[in-house]
Amino acid sequence: MKEGGFARGQGPGRVAIVGAGQVGTMIGMALTAAGLKAGVDGVDLFDVDPSVAALSRERGAGRRVLGDLGEALSADTVIIAIPVPGIVRFLEEYGARLAPGSLVIDTGGAKAMVVNAMRRHVPPSVHAVGGHPMAGTEVPGPAGARSGLCAGAPFAIVPVRDDPEALARAHALALAAGSIPVDVDAETHDRIVARTSHLPHLVAFAVARVVRRGDLDGAVARSLASSGLAGVTRLAASDPTMVAGFLWANAREVRRSVAELVEALAALGEALDGGPEGLAEALAGIVLGVSR
Amino acid sequence: MKEGGFARGQGPGRVAIVGAGQVGTMIGMALTAAGLKAGVDGVDLFDVDPSVAALSRERGAGRRVLGDLGEALSADTVIIAIPVPGIVRFLEEYGARLAPGSLVIDTGGAKAMVVNAMRRHVPPSVHAVGGHPMAGTEVPGPAGARSGLCAGAPFAIVPVRDDPEALARAHALALAAGSIPVDVDAETHDRIVARTSHLPHLVAFAVARVVRRGDLDGAVARSLASSGLAGVTRLAASDPTMVAGFLWANAREVRRSVAELVEALAALGEALDGGPEGLAEALAGIVLGVSR
Repeated sequence: MKEGGFARGQGPGRVAIVGAGQVGTMIGMALTAAGLKAGVDGVDLFDVDPSVAALSRERGAGRRVLGDLGEALSADTVIIAIPVPGIVRFLEEYGARLAPGSLVIDTGGAKAMVVNAMRRHVPPSVHAVGGHPMAGTEVPGPAGARSGLCAGAPFAIVPVRDDPEALARAHALALAAGSIPVDVDAETHDRIVARTSHLPHLVAFAVARVVRRGDLDGAVARSLASSGLAGVTRLAASDPTMVAGFLWANAREVRRSVAELVEALAALGEALDGGPEGLAEALAGIVLGVSR
Repeated sequence: MKEGGFARGQGPGRVAIVGAGQVGTMIGMALTAAGLKAGVDGVDLFDVDPSVAALSRERGAGRRVLGDLGEALSADTVIIAIPVPGIVRFLEEYGARLAPGSLVIDTGGAKAMVVNAMRRHVPPSVHAVGGHPMAGTEVPGPAGARSGLCAGAPFAIVPVRDDPEALARAHALALAAGSIPVDVDAETHDRIVARTSHLPHLVAFAVARVVRRGDLDGAVARSLASSGLAGVTRLAASDPTMVAGFLWANAREVRRSVAELVEALAALGEALDGGPEGLAEALAGIVLGVSR
């Protein structure tokens, strides 16, 4: 089996990032800044929209823009940083063409669907790992990426096969980006993230919809808008295609978490029947339960 | 009719703040900093917990702590900065003892219940106005108050009776605190704020409850917690008694906004059935609708 162009365990080698949006740019910036000391032998960027890749490069995410996806497939480390449905299509189409001995990892927000596709479409000669860097901003595209966002952030590492080298290389990659690798299986990841990330995204859009649809006097409503609203709806500024991708890919757990939210709202509505003291007690109970 | 100890329209005169928590402290800091130039002839602080009032004074919210609530009632401007149920009780008990010609204003997050209580319990010789400074942090108590938070923030001014002087004085008070007075009737305020503030608070607690209740692996869940979750649940750190107070006082509109949220979640759930493209379109439609 041909190994990638770098000694095992030494680092990511030549990295190709497929998808130069906010997440790809963020990781590219972190890896480019880390450089050879962290085993990064340059970052190449590919995006279906070449102007996006060019902007990403300008932001410092890589040394060059690839004109052809095929060039990405021969890298030592391929990072697929596109919405989940696109990741699955990429694996279906190109998984078999990845270089033996290379590492392929994604950045999608839902993992079971991705690692299943990796098992099906990536040959065992390639080290495949599911990844999820838990960092970013709500601003889509390379412009939304900020250097340093990866630093100290969790980076979920999700096994695809019994392949310790895959996990070791994924750890090295996460560490090179300054992140903290967190080993977790796909199902646990998806169950947790449904509630800690996907539900907050869905709620942000849903509250935004209520504010928009409510028969509110626009001018007065705008002048009364609170910082609290901005906090809760901030995630509704996220790229809808990215958000729709992980919500769809994690639909079962997302639906469960929505049902739990509706139940929680109903329980608080019942507490509201009991007057302000009973409601305050119910709210305080949640806070105590959440504090760690 | 005896007038307060300051010429009309010149400013708030001697101010007494009843309730030296985060909101009272924030306003006290702003008014104390504004001082005589803004017509503020000193701020006195009362709290049922004298140690809270003392801490508020230490933070710069006023010149002295009142040992007796009676001393507050004789001020030129009385600001009631306690949870809504407490405001109503205060008006019932002490409304008739407020000084003729003085201004009484509250800071509660729900207004119809408060201005109704003002109509019933505050004699017409007193200038009564409902107030709602749309500023603050999620940290309860004087420690959560930050100077400058009032600056540039909206301050809802809600009429109680046909009393132009009351409104003029309330405007002067809001301006003295550096805020932007926004005239709005109680029903419109409550309908808007139910959706722009009360619903976000309720959702923050409900999402916190889901995260807590979900059968999540605690250590992994903590290591995967995202900044998105922190944003959506930030308001769940608010004082439960304050939050319960305005949710209860605005129960009808809060219940309606919850029903609208559940409907919005159901609509997004339906869009989810249509696959990622349909869902992305639905999410993008919300964003477009919200963007101004």
